[in-house]
Amino acid sequence: MSDSIRIVLSHPSHPGNIGAAARAMKTMGLERLYLVNPTDFPSVEATARASGADTVLQHAVVTQTLDEAIADCQYVLGTSARLRTVSLPQLDARQAASEIVDQRPTQQAAVLFGRERFGLTNEEINRCHGLVYIPTNPEYGSLNLGMAVQIISYEMRLAKLAAGNHQVPEMPSEPPARQELVEGLIDHLRRTLLAIGFLDPKQSTTMLARLRRLLQRAEPAETEVNILRGILSKMDRHANTSEKVSK
Amino acid sequence: MSDSIRIVLSHPSHPGNIGAAARAMKTMGLERLYLVNPTDFPSVEATARASGADTVLQHAVVTQTLDEAIADCQYVLGTSARLRTVSLPQLDARQAASEIVDQRPTQQAAVLFGRERFGLTNEEINRCHGLVYIPTNPEYGSLNLGMAVQIISYEMRLAKLAAGNHQVPEMPSEPPARQELVEGLIDHLRRTLLAIGFLDPKQSTTMLARLRRLLQRAEPAETEVNILRGILSKMDRHANTSEKVSK
Repeated sequence: MSDSIRIVLSHPSHPGNIGAAARAMKTMGLERLYLVNPTDFPSVEATARASGADTVLQHAVVTQTLDEAIADCQYVLGTSARLRTVSLPQLDARQAASEIVDQRPTQQAAVLFGRERFGLTNEEINRCHGLVYIPTNPEYGSLNLGMAVQIISYEMRLAKLAAGNHQVPEMPSEPPARQELVEGLIDHLRRTLLAIGFLDPKQSTTMLARLRRLLQRAEPAETEVNILRGILSKMDRHANTSEKVSK
Repeated sequence: MSDSIRIVLSHPSHPGNIGAAARAMKTMGLERLYLVNPTDFPSVEATARASGADTVLQHAVVTQTLDEAIADCQYVLGTSARLRTVSLPQLDARQAASEIVDQRPTQQAAVLFGRERFGLTNEEINRCHGLVYIPTNPEYGSLNLGMAVQIISYEMRLAKLAAGNHQVPEMPSEPPARQELVEGLIDHLRRTLLAIGFLDPKQSTTMLARLRRLLQRAEPAETEVNILRGILSKMDRHANTSEKVSK
């Protein structure tokens, strides 16, 4: 079950934090670390801070973009230091662990940590199905990256230990599509909406972000992604025809 | 209530760990740190690692013996890396938090952390009413002192939030659209999909039922229903144009 959960660090700038995250993960039985464009990795400092958890570092997957790191994921949670005003489900660490471990035991899931200085960007949040926050002291919420990974990993472990006592079978519906298929759909949607003249190229970003969130809330299955792309392809053909007419 | 819980570090040898513990405590709303015979305190390193939590260090109480640090306590839990063969109650971190916060809300309680190298001595354990352990990976349980303080403090905070019946503010998102608007959208979708030739009138029911489920899972807001209808209207116009061409 551990193998279905990954921790993704986006653009970590301090190698010590990478090591601390690896150690935190391993103490709680998590092994899969993804690093998106780390400033300094591999590094002596990361290995030193990882202590005996250097196997996690050895197997860490380094990618250039976040999309590569979550391409095969079906559920992505972004960590947030505070509640945000976004229309995404917001879970505390314990609820998030239950959501992943109890509700999605067979899905590939990622928990995403943003840059040390300023957390996840809006673009990164757009990739997420929900946000997870750690209920810290409102007057001093300064958890460093390693500590945040520690608490999230701890809750995952406790949820797994509890689940081991009473296994709930997952409901027999189709699993959500992998993230790369959803990205393909969103890109197709963008092109079609431009072709039919619904999107203004200058202000398409906000509208697309909104449609993306709507789509991600629905967590479409692969079949559904294919149906939606089928509709878009039909549209593309009509748009082409009427474009020829207007020329 | 925070004031009734203290964290006691026995003979901490690394000042960095003292700073990390202070920071971990403060992120979870704990303020009272006791240091029994620390090797190096106060120190620049502890203050640096404490980050903004240096008030915890400034108010830390340094004692020569454990007995002084817990003299006014009514309940003392010792942390242990593993279950021990002692005749004391042994609680996991979550149970310990409940024991202190729920069962003993008005008592002075201490959680005691032993030396970094070898934990609590038998003599120190004899001062405790119970032991608390963090359920780590049996193959790699190497939590450092700061991480252990972080998890214990986190559980204390969650127990306190639950005890205070803390309300998580509802996320400021738009409410789902009224069902009649969703029905209007589905009807529009049906007409458009027929117009663009995606739906076969004979077998449209199954496909429409599927699209309806997808849409309902997303629980679109009224704005989103309007956006989707805007897209469909654009499509309708293209379908009309290309139909005229083919006639």
